[in-house]
Amino acid sequence: MGFLLMSLLQAQLDRSCQSIQHEIGVGKVADYIPALAQVPSDKFAAAIITVTGETASFGAAKEALSIQSISKLFTLASTLNLRGTKLWDRVGREPSGNAFNSIVQLEMECGIPRNPFINAGALVVTDAMLGDQQSTQDCTSDLLSFVRDLAQDNSIVIDEDVARSERDAAFRNASLCYFMKNFKNLERPVDDVLDVYCQQCAISMNCKQLARSALFLANNGIDPLTHKKIVSEERARRLNAMMMLCGHYDASGDFAFRVGLPGKSGVGGGIVVVVPDVAAVAVWSPRLNANGNSHAGTAALEALVRETQWNVL
Amino acid sequence: MGFLLMSLLQAQLDRSCQSIQHEIGVGKVADYIPALAQVPSDKFAAAIITVTGETASFGAAKEALSIQSISKLFTLASTLNLRGTKLWDRVGREPSGNAFNSIVQLEMECGIPRNPFINAGALVVTDAMLGDQQSTQDCTSDLLSFVRDLAQDNSIVIDEDVARSERDAAFRNASLCYFMKNFKNLERPVDDVLDVYCQQCAISMNCKQLARSALFLANNGIDPLTHKKIVSEERARRLNAMMMLCGHYDASGDFAFRVGLPGKSGVGGGIVVVVPDVAAVAVWSPRLNANGNSHAGTAALEALVRETQWNVL
Amino acid sequence: MGFLLMSLLQAQLDRSCQSIQHEIGVGKVADYIPALAQVPSDKFAAAIITVTGETASFGAAKEALSIQSISKLFTLASTLNLRGTKLWDRVGREPSGNAFNSIVQLEMECGIPRNPFINAGALVVTDAMLGDQQSTQDCTSDLLSFVRDLAQDNSIVIDEDVARSERDAAFRNASLCYFMKNFKNLERPVDDVLDVYCQQCAISMNCKQLARSALFLANNGIDPLTHKKIVSEERARRLNAMMMLCGHYDASGDFAFRVGLPGKSGVGGGIVVVVPDVAAVAVWSPRLNANGNSHAGTAALEALVRETQWNVL
Amino acid sequence: MGFLLMSLLQAQLDRSCQSIQHEIGVGKVADYIPALAQVPSDKFAAAIITVTGETASFGAAKEALSIQSISKLFTLASTLNLRGTKLWDRVGREPSGNAFNSIVQLEMECGIPRNPFINAGALVVTDAMLGDQQSTQDCTSDLLSFVRDLAQDNSIVIDEDVARSERDAAFRNASLCYFMKNFKNLERPVDDVLDVYCQQCAISMNCKQLARSALFLANNGIDPLTHKKIVSEERARRLNAMMMLCGHYDASGDFAFRVGLPGKSGVGGGIVVVVPDVAAVAVWSPRLNANGNSHAGTAALEALVRETQWNVL
Repeated sequence: MGFLLMSLLQAQLDRSCQSIQHEIGVGKVADYIPALAQVPSDKFAAAIITVTGETASFGAAKEALSIQSISKLFTLASTLNLRGTKLWDRVGREPSGNAFNSIVQLEMECGIPRNPFINAGALVVTDAMLGDQQSTQDCTSDLLSFVRDLAQDNSIVIDEDVARSERDAAFRNASLCYFMKNFKNLERPVDDVLDVYCQQCAISMNCKQLARSALFLANNGIDPLTHKKIVSEERARRLNAMMMLCGHYDASGDFAFRVGLPGKSGVGGGIVVVVPDVAAVAVWSPRLNANGNSHAGTAALEALVRETQWNVL
Repeated sequence: MGFLLMSLLQAQLDRSCQSIQHEIGVGKVADYIPALAQVPSDKFAAAIITVTGETASFGAAKEALSIQSISKLFTLASTLNLRGTKLWDRVGREPSGNAFNSIVQLEMECGIPRNPFINAGALVVTDAMLGDQQSTQDCTSDLLSFVRDLAQDNSIVIDEDVARSERDAAFRNASLCYFMKNFKNLERPVDDVLDVYCQQCAISMNCKQLARSALFLANNGIDPLTHKKIVSEERARRLNAMMMLCGHYDASGDFAFRVGLPGKSGVGGGIVVVVPDVAAVAVWSPRLNANGNSHAGTAALEALVRETQWNVL
Repeated sequence: MGFLLMSLLQAQLDRSCQSIQHEIGVGKVADYIPALAQVPSDKFAAAIITVTGETASFGAAKEALSIQSISKLFTLASTLNLRGTKLWDRVGREPSGNAFNSIVQLEMECGIPRNPFINAGALVVTDAMLGDQQSTQDCTSDLLSFVRDLAQDNSIVIDEDVARSERDAAFRNASLCYFMKNFKNLERPVDDVLDVYCQQCAISMNCKQLARSALFLANNGIDPLTHKKIVSEERARRLNAMMMLCGHYDASGDFAFRVGLPGKSGVGGGIVVVVPDVAAVAVWSPRLNANGNSHAGTAALEALVRETQWNVL
Repeated sequence: MGFLLMSLLQAQLDRSCQSIQHEIGVGKVADYIPALAQVPSDKFAAAIITVTGETASFGAAKEALSIQSISKLFTLASTLNLRGTKLWDRVGREPSGNAFNSIVQLEMECGIPRNPFINAGALVVTDAMLGDQQSTQDCTSDLLSFVRDLAQDNSIVIDEDVARSERDAAFRNASLCYFMKNFKNLERPVDDVLDVYCQQCAISMNCKQLARSALFLANNGIDPLTHKKIVSEERARRLNAMMMLCGHYDASGDFAFRVGLPGKSGVGGGIVVVVPDVAAVAVWSPRLNANGNSHAGTAALEALVRETQWNVL
């Protein structure tokens, strides 16, 4: 691992992040979950880890954020491992073109959500992850272990305040669940699915952990540092394609243009992106743009790919 | 009360019902609730009561049926009495043009259902009927008393088997409830609303009781036999207008043409209609047409209005 | 024909109209067609004709208004006479629950409009009226003759300025036409259909003529004064049912409650209503409510049915 | 230019194409345009050109196909050059999640199409390309020149039979046009827009020409062989992002997974893809899968990226 390379990487990250510091005050913190609304809105962090192990970070990269919808990436990876490709009978793989929580398309398409990154799809994935036997506690615990393994860090926890806060306000997600249950596309009781879903959204990770946890996707499914196979090469491609097309709600097209990399964002202000064959990157800044993605985070990634030419498009 | 008039009325009803007996085998019994699917499909009944007290009946007119959506008429009348016209801030009064259980329109119109006779609207009415203090048991009990008073018959009961069967399968209605709760258009917990809703749908009445219970709507809101004011004249007009435009799911236009009277149907195969200033009529036959209305029941009403010229259109 | 009865009728109409004169300034004149926007907004008129020939009028009852969507009633009656009930294969008979010019439902239902009183449905009716041979001029001329016969008045004309103004702005209707043509539910070239449609909307009639032209619908399809059969009794019921359920755009439910009679309104501010077995009534006042119906006109009809108890609901 | 490299490239292409020859008979030729339905369904071709000028081809690579929707890529590039980024006020840049010719979303979003690759969006682009002064002939001629320049081949022509055939059946596109005109999002007469649109779709190119014409997109907007700047680097990224997210109708997600490259398909059975920094590839086989993309063509591209590891995801 080259010291010079790491210096270069850190310098590139520094330049990128410094160039967009004025963007940190722009946008609005998610306030539909009380626990999220309390996070200081001027936080900013970024972290990179390359497939050869070089790292760089900027700002509050060791401070935990609520990963929220980024968890959809982890539950999808884990559930595909657990249940196989028959999952795709229950959820599609195409962009939705509707708001992340829309129920209209779900009625037209008879309870089969468009993709695993809109809420309805993620709820189906969680239901499949639960399967027909496991307790919600065991399921959550297994998922947390999966994420800790990915990040190689056992200190990762679930923020129970956030989980509870989210669970108490989960009316729309409950509506989506019952709607799918009506179409027989939900096996477990709705309460079980929502319990696990709200726990997974409340996983608390810092940018270093987030970047590390996505590194296997930059290396064809194999963790390049531990050499452990996380998912098959084909599955890694699938996850990257899904992130590229649907990873940023109704602004995925804009993200593909500006950043040109597969990524997944969450309303906690975090974004994780994959640079195939090169690295994984995580950014965090709580203020969101109109589409629910971190405003300064997206700007930082845009600056970084201009510095590094890491964009694939 | 004229004996001759009653003979004439009975003769008209007999002729009408006999002329459509071949229709009884047409259509399909509702099977989404197991308890409903067990009702013998060849049942047929009809009952008339006039504002001057003459009665006529045909077939199994003393045999109880599950009133199902006909209950929406009673809960609406009762809730308007209890909560007043501010109910209309929470539910519209126009035809929906969509299936009775569609959620699409609800998303476009931000959680305000189109009218109280589609499921979403009826659930809001039930929530308003419950109010913020009453227990679900007291609410159900009060509604049952209201219906018994209307029918002047204390033997009317709730079929607990049907209620339970319906409650266990209430996924779509749960979805509608949570969706509206997300838009702050449901005050009580969803489980409370569904408990009461499934109880009200499971009220068990025979055609004689059903016709009697709607008689006040043929007399400007006043029970013509007890002289008790049930609702104001204006409210009676409102209920009749609602039945005329929205009383038969997505076949209200067809019913208005064929029968030309305000009415409300239920998937149990019952239909109650109001002949303004003249009478109330109830029919029952479990097999339903494609729109969920009793096939033979509609045919019998059509024949009856041709006999009696009771149609208002 | 009783002089006393006519005095009574005139007195009732006078009282009704005088009681709502303060409503004349409320609402907004339709301005999407320049020629309509020029009509003085404070006009008010009403006219009644009974099945026994008594008449009464108020205000500018001899002044012509642009009948606009009221024409949909005449084209429907005429086309059913010309083409028979196979018209119903091409257009439904149920309320739409969407704006009068919505295209969404049309896509979901594969080019079959919900009813003949929404624009898409009226355009299909016009196409059927045209048939496969007639010239647009002959078709328009035949329709005008039909309306003149109904009104027993050969002075009725088409306002060519309004027709042209409407034709030039008919983009949305053209879109609906091409959409249906794509589903093979339009036989003639779109331009032909739009030409006739814009002519029919531009028929110019006063309230006396309008009321007279709808009188056959109050008498089971037979003109009670000439004894000429205009449509069959069944067809008269169909037309009345259609008006009751769909005659006032997305405010048909409200109209059914307030007025309780079958009617058809137009954006020119005219409304014609049918009192079965009794009379036909026309009102006119250009300012419209939010749903596109004459504000003062509706108020006048509401007052009139309270005076006369003519409401059927 | 290395002879060995070209041999390798040709060998890779040969292996890829040979491995999927059994797929050529699968799927259905587009038949909504008579002229397209006449193309022999067992055609197959592929062509590659690299940024350093190496070429390889397979099958009928010199036989012309109707490019159909692939033309949307060329008109978008040309129109952005002509009219600048204010085009984005009139058309979005996000996946649509609906069928390519749906009008539902257009109503909900008030006449602003989701992206330039669905029909509504492409029609807006064509309207903008026309601008307010140019004749349709000049516009079509300029576009053809633009494409000939891209392909460095003046023999490319428009198939007038296909254009006429398509123009005669353009009812749905006419509906989309008038709908947008109603929302003031179409400046020119609908007939002008449809004339040019049907001409552009009927451009006839072979796979070699197609691959050559997209080469600038593999080289940051600059033709790597002529060194001519076609579009800015930013615009090239935009076009690639658009192809990646929306290039294959409602199967873009599937294509991103299987092929992992930006591409655009047409119902003529052609697909062109961009391998950033490396090459452009075109394939052709007329039989389409359920989503309207060439079945064997997609399979060939999938095989090729497995051979070459050219996928970016």
